[in-house]
Amino acid sequence: MTLIINHSQLKQCIELSSDLIPIIENAFIQLSNGNTTMPPILRLDIKEYHGEADVKTAYIKGLDSFAIKVASGFFNNPSIGLPTSSGLMILLDSKTGLLKAVLLDKGYLTDIRTAIAGSIASKYLSNQNSTTVAIIGTGMQARLQLSSLCLVRNITNVNIWGRDESKIDKYIEDMKIFREFKLIKCSSVESAVKESEIIITTTPSNSPLIQNQWIQSGQHITAMGSDAEHKNELYPEIISSCNCYVPDNLDQTRILGELNHAITKKIIDKDKKFTELGEIIKNPSLGRKTENDITVCDLTGTGVQDTAIARYAFDLAKSKNLGMEIN
Amino acid sequence: MTLIINHSQLKQCIELSSDLIPIIENAFIQLSNGNTTMPPILRLDIKEYHGEADVKTAYIKGLDSFAIKVASGFFNNPSIGLPTSSGLMILLDSKTGLLKAVLLDKGYLTDIRTAIAGSIASKYLSNQNSTTVAIIGTGMQARLQLSSLCLVRNITNVNIWGRDESKIDKYIEDMKIFREFKLIKCSSVESAVKESEIIITTTPSNSPLIQNQWIQSGQHITAMGSDAEHKNELYPEIISSCNCYVPDNLDQTRILGELNHAITKKIIDKDKKFTELGEIIKNPSLGRKTENDITVCDLTGTGVQDTAIARYAFDLAKSKNLGMEIN
Repeated sequence: MTLIINHSQLKQCIELSSDLIPIIENAFIQLSNGNTTMPPILRLDIKEYHGEADVKTAYIKGLDSFAIKVASGFFNNPSIGLPTSSGLMILLDSKTGLLKAVLLDKGYLTDIRTAIAGSIASKYLSNQNSTTVAIIGTGMQARLQLSSLCLVRNITNVNIWGRDESKIDKYIEDMKIFREFKLIKCSSVESAVKESEIIITTTPSNSPLIQNQWIQSGQHITAMGSDAEHKNELYPEIISSCNCYVPDNLDQTRILGELNHAITKKIIDKDKKFTELGEIIKNPSLGRKTENDITVCDLTGTGVQDTAIARYAFDLAKSKNLGMEIN
Repeated sequence: MTLIINHSQLKQCIELSSDLIPIIENAFIQLSNGNTTMPPILRLDIKEYHGEADVKTAYIKGLDSFAIKVASGFFNNPSIGLPTSSGLMILLDSKTGLLKAVLLDKGYLTDIRTAIAGSIASKYLSNQNSTTVAIIGTGMQARLQLSSLCLVRNITNVNIWGRDESKIDKYIEDMKIFREFKLIKCSSVESAVKESEIIITTTPSNSPLIQNQWIQSGQHITAMGSDAEHKNELYPEIISSCNCYVPDNLDQTRILGELNHAITKKIIDKDKKFTELGEIIKNPSLGRKTENDITVCDLTGTGVQDTAIARYAFDLAKSKNLGMEIN
């Protein structure tokens, strides 16, 4: 029997909360410990419709199930009133390969686990007393990254920049309901960056947005937009000149992350080792050393996060008797 | 809305019949024409349980949907009374990436499209008057390949070999109900091969089973077992000495097929070009030239077959009002 859990049922099980932080932290720890099998991402591009479908998976040793996640991104969708992202997760039994569950999340669980990874990055790498953040981008992750940052830092000022002014206005309108921040519309990436202690980039940009000379002592950057070879949000000099560059998964950021561009431009050697997020979660002293350090976390999104959140959602759905068994 | 179609509903829509031959032929033609985007297979190995999960996909240009297929193979399953293979297919909209359907086929559609590929190989490459076949292996595909061969050739004699004698007996018992053949239990691969006009290998063998010196003039071999780097059914000399070697997809057989081993052993140059099955379907004169030619078809299984059969099953399910819509 396979349990089919739909979108609204998953929303009843999972919301963006600090409960999820240890779940995703543990996934990163297992990944960095080498307790996982995580093959390279499968990506199918459908160029004529400006779309892509990604498949991610990871098996975490000792766990009785693992997820395979399909995520689509079709960038013409908003023009016809549809969300850019969609997808589903499936959960397979680790011992038999049989299908335990289909989670029809439409990308919701991906959105949540991505946001939680962002809060984990800031929890371990930003200065603890940070109150100001720059949010670059105005989409779903721009919203979720800010919400999830508030789980770990007492944010009072938000400097928001996006290409489309009307979307900034909409963002401010939406986010002021969420919490009492000062939400400031910025006319340039530069001004947003210079005024902030934490910087979160959430765009699908194909060319870098943030210059190295704008970066201030003590800042932390989470670059979560780049998850494909062509995507790039930071000028690669930032990677070489910061005090601490942290990949979610080094093998992946070398190919898909900000690190990819630093390697391509020969600013960083392709074999250079960096401490992964999971190792810093285990031993935070490997990350930021002083208040003045500049830290960068490069999030490309990993299959272990998918396996962790899919398993957690499945257990909650079972305990709440949600979903439908189909043979 | 997503249509969920379960295993028994899919069996109501699709059975092994000659209706499927043009559907799968067309998929191979599109693949060889370059009208497809087919990324490399994603494979996750779970070594401690002797299991693997494969993900295949392909977009065929101009079609309004494409499939992503998950297939698992867990080789300890039979010892606990479970089938080795399982899986599902999902169908996404080509223009929006939205999920159209989940086909809970438990590997059924994969079994069928694999069997049909076998019949296509024999239809184009074996001598038309062939009546004898060697079936190497006694599992599900050993059954389906024989059934599907009967769609294209008038088979009267079946020489069957497997490692486990009791499984040969069971095979003969099962298949004699299917059709009036002469089913002959062979004590060696060699005797099965030497007595047959068509040879079909259906095993997950990791070391070659068929020697070049056993091959007779005029024979056709379909090697469908090898779909991973370590799998191998034919001694690689067969690939270099046959008159016509035909891959389902050259890029894939170089890595996963019988060709892989011929390249590794430096019997075939890694860049050597071969005419693919799709090209031979379009122009059969590119295949067998004379009755005495020895032909080999190397089937690794392609994402275009999955997209083709998933779309066909979906259309039939819709027309029969089968499945359940879930939001």
